[in-house]
Amino acid sequence: MRPWRKKKENRNAMNECRIDERIDDLQRNGYRIIQKKTGFHFGTDAVLLSDFACVKAGERVLDLGTGSGVIPILMEARSQGAHFTGLEIQTDLADMAARSVRLNGLEDCVEIVLGDIKEASRICGRASFDVITANPPYMTGSHGLENPDPMKAIARHELLCTFADVARETEALLRPGGRFYLVHRPRRLAELISTMREYHLEPKRLRFVYPFADRMAKLVLIEAVRGGGVMLKVEPPLVVFREPGIYSEEITAAYGN
Amino acid sequence: MRPWRKKKENRNAMNECRIDERIDDLQRNGYRIIQKKTGFHFGTDAVLLSDFACVKAGERVLDLGTGSGVIPILMEARSQGAHFTGLEIQTDLADMAARSVRLNGLEDCVEIVLGDIKEASRICGRASFDVITANPPYMTGSHGLENPDPMKAIARHELLCTFADVARETEALLRPGGRFYLVHRPRRLAELISTMREYHLEPKRLRFVYPFADRMAKLVLIEAVRGGGVMLKVEPPLVVFREPGIYSEEITAAYGN
Repeated sequence: MRPWRKKKENRNAMNECRIDERIDDLQRNGYRIIQKKTGFHFGTDAVLLSDFACVKAGERVLDLGTGSGVIPILMEARSQGAHFTGLEIQTDLADMAARSVRLNGLEDCVEIVLGDIKEASRICGRASFDVITANPPYMTGSHGLENPDPMKAIARHELLCTFADVARETEALLRPGGRFYLVHRPRRLAELISTMREYHLEPKRLRFVYPFADRMAKLVLIEAVRGGGVMLKVEPPLVVFREPGIYSEEITAAYGN
Repeated sequence: MRPWRKKKENRNAMNECRIDERIDDLQRNGYRIIQKKTGFHFGTDAVLLSDFACVKAGERVLDLGTGSGVIPILMEARSQGAHFTGLEIQTDLADMAARSVRLNGLEDCVEIVLGDIKEASRICGRASFDVITANPPYMTGSHGLENPDPMKAIARHELLCTFADVARETEALLRPGGRFYLVHRPRRLAELISTMREYHLEPKRLRFVYPFADRMAKLVLIEAVRGGGVMLKVEPPLVVFREPGIYSEEITAAYGN
């Protein structure tokens, strides 16, 4: 299917997986992912973001705060992008993500880099990516109780970086005209839009995710273009459940079932 | 039903209606509206906005660029607001709107004022309204051809005022904590949000209107609060047609059928 990208043999799963971890099937290309048994797991958010993001053939992609590495691994599976980098500040998570990359034999095209989003453009290079993705912490420091598990707390709360840090580094990392893909909570939409525009990331495409057709939106997916013109599309509503416990057709397709 | 508001006798319709005009039934409270036979007619937009806007008992409401006066008349029908003002710059339209007010016997609680949105706070008084509504021109000067009919062109294109004028005057007209209700095109959403926040109108509630469940949004309804905190709700998608030619239940209810 993709002869230009030689896929290495998958390593023996048991060599890559530790006692406090488990291996899940990503239901894409036979790829698997290592996650903590009790820590933060990737959610619908990450799957929807990797489905929403457009990566064209030959493009270079960076995922800010990659956690388990699920977003670059899923995007590698469903695009013809040339190279995917995942930046992660937590040593344990970066190590686990790198083992997931090896488990799937993707070392040639997916790289996990240990580092801080606040210094991402210095670490990864200015204007050197076509696409940036981010599934950043949703909660501001003052909103909600911080999670007692530090790994979960860092993933969910803006303890180590704010959305302004993400936007500033994204502007620096993207080539002019490059695209930024974000999943976040609608409750912060006005602030997100203001901040993106402050850093010349013009929102071009929005999609709202509703648990049911008659409920308020729980997530928003945003495509912004560095230096883009003012013109926005709001795509059809993405409804997760057709009825309680039964996914809509679109969600079933995004999950690869 | 509302003994505190004495409704005058409806005038003879023929005295209020001119040869180039027609009278339509608003399907609310038996109210009717005068419109030009061939000019700009109010649309779904105005009906949805008057349905989206919350007006509490005793509140004072101003509609910026009221045109035929349909928004204050519909809001009078469906709320317990104390007083409704419609500001309109075009003499013909302001006169026609005032005749619609008389036709429905609403002179005690609906007033049409001739004037420019750009001077609205000087004309109508600073910090003197609880609620502002606006169904402003959607198109910027450079977008799309200007309409050859001046009345339609002024209603559809930002010829006489920009959205920044609307936001600036809204901030001045609203009491602190007062609410602004807007209907506009999603294509300009990012700019609308930035401009509103510049004038301390914080978006608090958004609703997107989709022609069908699988199509892009055509309209957005926005509630903003003067000096409000950062926290936004995105309400369930409002789908206009259940199938081609058949309105959804919600739209049927909004139209009063």
